[in-house]
Amino acid sequence: MSAEVGVGGAGRDARDPLAGYRDRFVGAESSLVYFDGNSLGRPLKVTGPRLARFVDEEWGGRLIRGWDERWFDLPRTIGDDLGRVVLGAGPGQTAVGDSTTVLLYKLMRAAVAARPGRTEIAIDRDNFPTDRYVAAGIADECGLTLRWIDVDRAAGVTPDLLAAAVGEQTALVVLSHVAYRSAWLADVPELTRIAHDAGALVLWDECHSAGSVPVALDDAGVDLAVGCTYKYLNGGPGSPAYCYVARRHLDTLTQPIQGWMGAVDPFLMGPTYAPAEGIRRFLSGTPPIVGMLAVQDMLDLVEEVGMPAVRAKSVELTSYAVEVAESLLGDHGGVLASPRDPAQRGGHVTLDHPLMREVTAALWQQDVIPDYRDPGGLRIGLSPLSTSFAEVERGLEMVRATLDGLST
Amino acid sequence: MSAEVGVGGAGRDARDPLAGYRDRFVGAESSLVYFDGNSLGRPLKVTGPRLARFVDEEWGGRLIRGWDERWFDLPRTIGDDLGRVVLGAGPGQTAVGDSTTVLLYKLMRAAVAARPGRTEIAIDRDNFPTDRYVAAGIADECGLTLRWIDVDRAAGVTPDLLAAAVGEQTALVVLSHVAYRSAWLADVPELTRIAHDAGALVLWDECHSAGSVPVALDDAGVDLAVGCTYKYLNGGPGSPAYCYVARRHLDTLTQPIQGWMGAVDPFLMGPTYAPAEGIRRFLSGTPPIVGMLAVQDMLDLVEEVGMPAVRAKSVELTSYAVEVAESLLGDHGGVLASPRDPAQRGGHVTLDHPLMREVTAALWQQDVIPDYRDPGGLRIGLSPLSTSFAEVERGLEMVRATLDGLST
Repeated sequence: MSAEVGVGGAGRDARDPLAGYRDRFVGAESSLVYFDGNSLGRPLKVTGPRLARFVDEEWGGRLIRGWDERWFDLPRTIGDDLGRVVLGAGPGQTAVGDSTTVLLYKLMRAAVAARPGRTEIAIDRDNFPTDRYVAAGIADECGLTLRWIDVDRAAGVTPDLLAAAVGEQTALVVLSHVAYRSAWLADVPELTRIAHDAGALVLWDECHSAGSVPVALDDAGVDLAVGCTYKYLNGGPGSPAYCYVARRHLDTLTQPIQGWMGAVDPFLMGPTYAPAEGIRRFLSGTPPIVGMLAVQDMLDLVEEVGMPAVRAKSVELTSYAVEVAESLLGDHGGVLASPRDPAQRGGHVTLDHPLMREVTAALWQQDVIPDYRDPGGLRIGLSPLSTSFAEVERGLEMVRATLDGLST
Repeated sequence: MSAEVGVGGAGRDARDPLAGYRDRFVGAESSLVYFDGNSLGRPLKVTGPRLARFVDEEWGGRLIRGWDERWFDLPRTIGDDLGRVVLGAGPGQTAVGDSTTVLLYKLMRAAVAARPGRTEIAIDRDNFPTDRYVAAGIADECGLTLRWIDVDRAAGVTPDLLAAAVGEQTALVVLSHVAYRSAWLADVPELTRIAHDAGALVLWDECHSAGSVPVALDDAGVDLAVGCTYKYLNGGPGSPAYCYVARRHLDTLTQPIQGWMGAVDPFLMGPTYAPAEGIRRFLSGTPPIVGMLAVQDMLDLVEEVGMPAVRAKSVELTSYAVEVAESLLGDHGGVLASPRDPAQRGGHVTLDHPLMREVTAALWQQDVIPDYRDPGGLRIGLSPLSTSFAEVERGLEMVRATLDGLST
């Protein structure tokens, strides 16, 4: 980045080979500064017309026949697309459906049942609340103990911290690939190896990485993963989540919510439940077809661009945000709460300042939309294909002006 | 109906005060005979444009602000609309989210935890497979026994059959308001009273009734209910389900999938989970907003028409189907597998014949779309506002012609 120090946002956009993709998103022309693509990505312009066409032609035209023709397999075909394009997962291991929370529940229950006699679920203190809440609930109901993995403020979950928390008592380790607040990027292969050395299974939450940071679930030997599709995968508010179960576990792991869509023959409707072979056994009820369509549009785009290029742009964006933030806010008491090294950072940057709650509220009134996370964190999510460098610059100038206004 | 014997489908459509509503649905002009609105209702013509507008204006325009402005409350505002328009439920007791299967799991787990020491879940043999599978899974994991309630082929689940199956050992009774295969309509107040007399809670599945048969959850003293929105509520393939928890239970019942959207303060993101007050505690993950929008369109229409008029049309349609079927198929060995008395029948009619599997396959090739359910059942679902009497007549004539062709 050093060669570009001093080049402004507009200059960087002019040199950015991916700059043109921004026009594919709704709102590209707007002056709004959007720093929350890591909470809800912008829609693609093709998505609205696609949904309308789906309603009138596919739902309205094919009606119930649509299930036989396409929808029944869609959780797995989109799952395979996700695996190929963003997750580094071979076919047959990924399925779309339910919310992240429900999938966390299913996979954690499956995991602890596969490690009978072990008494602990290990999870890091900085993990997303839902992950912690689900783990705590399962620990309660299964008579297990929740073991907290400490987090180093300056290094995230390190191998040493994980190694200190796991042992022969550990059934399952639950970690996030990118920490939702700080953006610390975990070393997935190394931490997975440490969990495996202790004989535990490991579940990775990819909510804040998939679509901005390359994921390599198969290569890293991951057992289980979940993630959402409405952040960097632009599926829309509440679009369904996905789960990954490594092929070697598909014959043995089972989940507790036994519904007809996970049964070996859903239309036999027989007296007893037997789980399907393969990843379909992790489905339960009727899959949310309308809700998963938009994800396909974004997967098509990410495949066109390629995850390495997406990640390179993401690194440029977050590095520029760090550079501008330090230049504009350094003398205002703003503190970088995310890793400085881009190799250790996901797709967002968090800036701490005691006034950030008030700053966020004031910025929203001026069409600058970051996120706020307690305590005192302004979270700047930079969606690689829809955020411009000029947007980063303008937004951070507004942060400084707002801090100036609040401090006087 | 007797005054109308001999009047054909077209004549009945001419007299039908609700006939004009058919034009509000996609495909009204098509010659296709659709007998599967009880599996997947047709879309309304307003729904496609509404979804496209949502993507471009609300999701794309409001972005993350949409959660504060409308979406966060949407599971409960649509839930209240459902309660008012179709479920007979006062506000604050109904929420939309997850699949029927996942909501069955949450509510059954909540119920058995509220009846400690009781050892059985009672469920009828004709209940939908997912209901039976979820109950069996929960019985297994909670160390309970599944107690089968017998079903009278000529009377459904009678008070006597339920009374014989429940007692001081019963934690929960799970029943369907309308049986998915036979269309038997249960006596909800009476069966609920019998379950309560045994000290059990009762969970009603309203999947095959809501939107075609009036439901009166509050008046009947029901404890818990679930239902889907893609059948008579026209929410689209895999649209989310809803749950109802009676107000008197909202402070005490808790469910096992502890996610951030069910937490008392979802944005505090604190270290431990505490359930929200009210029906929100039955939510878990981020609610499926895109998937629930179409339901609003149908609820608006049902409210405009009124459930009593919808039910009256439904009774006329099913009665006409029974009349035509007996006239056309009586000498072909077709047997009515649904109640003859419309007061005991939901919104569909099932006709049994050993060849119905082959008949269904042949009919689909000719754009006549019924459903098939083992063994030998041709299921004719008559969506009250989108099915015409002429469609019923034409479809049943095709059933007869197809049986003729297969028998020669």
